[in-house]
Amino acid sequence: MKKNRLEAFSDGVFAIVITLLILNIKLPDVQYAGLQNGLLKLLPDVGVYVLSFLIVGMYWVFHHFSFTLIKDTDGVLIWLNIVFLLFISFMPFPAMLMGKYPYETMPMVIYIVNLMLANMCGFAMLIYLGKNRNLGAESLTDVVYRQQMLTYIIVNLMYVGCIFLAFIHPIVCVILIGAMTLFLIYRTMVLMGIGKCAVPAAE
Amino acid sequence: MKKNRLEAFSDGVFAIVITLLILNIKLPDVQYAGLQNGLLKLLPDVGVYVLSFLIVGMYWVFHHFSFTLIKDTDGVLIWLNIVFLLFISFMPFPAMLMGKYPYETMPMVIYIVNLMLANMCGFAMLIYLGKNRNLGAESLTDVVYRQQMLTYIIVNLMYVGCIFLAFIHPIVCVILIGAMTLFLIYRTMVLMGIGKCAVPAAE
Amino acid sequence: MKKNRLEAFSDGVFAIVITLLILNIKLPDVQYAGLQNGLLKLLPDVGVYVLSFLIVGMYWVFHHFSFTLIKDTDGVLIWLNIVFLLFISFMPFPAMLMGKYPYETMPMVIYIVNLMLANMCGFAMLIYLGKNRNLGAESLTDVVYRQQMLTYIIVNLMYVGCIFLAFIHPIVCVILIGAMTLFLIYRTMVLMGIGKCAVPAAE
Amino acid sequence: MKKNRLEAFSDGVFAIVITLLILNIKLPDVQYAGLQNGLLKLLPDVGVYVLSFLIVGMYWVFHHFSFTLIKDTDGVLIWLNIVFLLFISFMPFPAMLMGKYPYETMPMVIYIVNLMLANMCGFAMLIYLGKNRNLGAESLTDVVYRQQMLTYIIVNLMYVGCIFLAFIHPIVCVILIGAMTLFLIYRTMVLMGIGKCAVPAAE
Repeated sequence: MKKNRLEAFSDGVFAIVITLLILNIKLPDVQYAGLQNGLLKLLPDVGVYVLSFLIVGMYWVFHHFSFTLIKDTDGVLIWLNIVFLLFISFMPFPAMLMGKYPYETMPMVIYIVNLMLANMCGFAMLIYLGKNRNLGAESLTDVVYRQQMLTYIIVNLMYVGCIFLAFIHPIVCVILIGAMTLFLIYRTMVLMGIGKCAVPAAE
Repeated sequence: MKKNRLEAFSDGVFAIVITLLILNIKLPDVQYAGLQNGLLKLLPDVGVYVLSFLIVGMYWVFHHFSFTLIKDTDGVLIWLNIVFLLFISFMPFPAMLMGKYPYETMPMVIYIVNLMLANMCGFAMLIYLGKNRNLGAESLTDVVYRQQMLTYIIVNLMYVGCIFLAFIHPIVCVILIGAMTLFLIYRTMVLMGIGKCAVPAAE
Repeated sequence: MKKNRLEAFSDGVFAIVITLLILNIKLPDVQYAGLQNGLLKLLPDVGVYVLSFLIVGMYWVFHHFSFTLIKDTDGVLIWLNIVFLLFISFMPFPAMLMGKYPYETMPMVIYIVNLMLANMCGFAMLIYLGKNRNLGAESLTDVVYRQQMLTYIIVNLMYVGCIFLAFIHPIVCVILIGAMTLFLIYRTMVLMGIGKCAVPAAE
Repeated sequence: MKKNRLEAFSDGVFAIVITLLILNIKLPDVQYAGLQNGLLKLLPDVGVYVLSFLIVGMYWVFHHFSFTLIKDTDGVLIWLNIVFLLFISFMPFPAMLMGKYPYETMPMVIYIVNLMLANMCGFAMLIYLGKNRNLGAESLTDVVYRQQMLTYIIVNLMYVGCIFLAFIHPIVCVILIGAMTLFLIYRTMVLMGIGKCAVPAAE
């Protein structure tokens, strides 16, 4: 399978997941007089919508970047990618939980564990690429490889920290996830280049 | 990221949002004898479906046109585009509100504010392009740039007018939004060319 | 806008509509002991699912064929196509009605009128192409043009017949729609070629 | 219709079906105190989500492989493919049934019959290709043809076995389906190549 076919399929899944998130925000079942209160109760859902949209978007940009490091796909990469998408597609469920039970421990933990599992698939893809260098693009140098590995490890350690926080202080945990997301968005911005295209050759 | 990749992802989101709008029209919970009345009660939902479909379609055409002015994307444009899609994907929710509480102020205001926020992302992209001319296509001349800026400003001013009207006279507001949409559809028709392709070189 | 961009967007909408149809089949709210009866009550929904899937598929194939007759799009064709998609995307709603109120007149009429409106958009696109021959492909000869016009007129006359039948004898109407769909599927098969590709040059 | 157009449409349907599966997992309607129990009751749904995601993914990879054996499509192949997609798109319904009535016979039978019907469409496409060799790619040699036929027959016989088991011992049936899925995933991995791209020429 050419990698652009796998990319197109993944982009389709990303586009659908990101758009399905809005279905989590249900119409309040109230008369118009009570609408303002009804909408205020939806604020956590809206917050989770924005957070999840940005996170899925971030995973999409990062997925795109990762594929610039791949020259060709094989059966294993295809299936690691499908399992990765399994966790991405799962996102709307923990997002829905977090919206319904805001600032509670369990939904947050499920949400973060799901993100970690998606991450681990990406990590597994990277390691597999490292062991099958013929599948990697020229841009996958040893420096980039180690840099990517480090990124996965740091991000997952931060997620582990978030899980601990979710048990101790859920609100701080939410704030940390938000801050982490903004930081990672900035990271993907740098990866993609600011003011100029960063990865012209690899594409 | 090549711009056609970002376009394809955006097109996917547009296609899904525009198709999800139909899920807002729920089956009336009545016996067949009461179906006619049940369907009449759905007329506002159908009206909002048509309006929202046309508006999302309009944003899609305009988004396409805007991308003819871009030569290359960078991290900032990618993320401005993702935030733009965040507001586009949000559309089904205010649309659902407008269908359930027809001719009421609050749903209209939310609906319009959401459109304005989407617009502002487009505006931000334009300004960013203006400051990073190396990302712009040749078709992004100073004349086109000013013309596009003016379009964003005028449209947002009209939206501000609609919000005021929503407080004073909601029905007139709805009519104005409809008229504005038809006018903007006509504008995008002219942008895309009538009887001939307008932007052959830029594509 | 290059025609393949408009085609890709339309394909996206077709793919989503055709896949959303399954959401119309709701889980029966029964214990396992009552599941067999619950499923039997869903048979009309399944029938409508199959019928609608085939009809949307047919419109997709026919849409594809129509685009082999187009060389280039302009603002008017883009918007006629968007309005066409508006009716295609509407399909899940009348399909849901037909599943809930099987063999009743009103849902059938709505279902058929929606198909007619979609057809009329295609008809309008054809006439517009006839008046703007510079947008048409070489394969759009006078013979093909008249043949296509005839197809639209015959199909819509048959739909009008179905609407009359829906008032007189709904069950016969359903059978006729089914037979018509099978016949039109056969027609699109012939258009696409059997045993060989029919429209190699135009693609 | 060029085969890549049909592939793109099929990929769209696959991507949507695979992503819609998550909608089957509904939020538990409990207070936060009861959430843990509520989530435990969802475990069958999660299991079915994972199983169905992998199965749809497997069909996607296999569909992709099958299309490397096709040089050109005709009206019959297009329609066999649409009917194939009809069964793929149907998946969320039996998946939902299996989640609601775990380890019960009827949902399993419906689930498996649906998979068999999808398989039979693929089988029909293969036979049609065998009778219209001009549509086949060079990679569709007699050896590959017989090998593919055998695959379809073996898989369907295994499905028949699963149906019998569903009546006798549902839990063993579920385990068998899971094992079969893992085996078939491994098969598609081998088809796609491990450590190198297996079908470079045919793509």
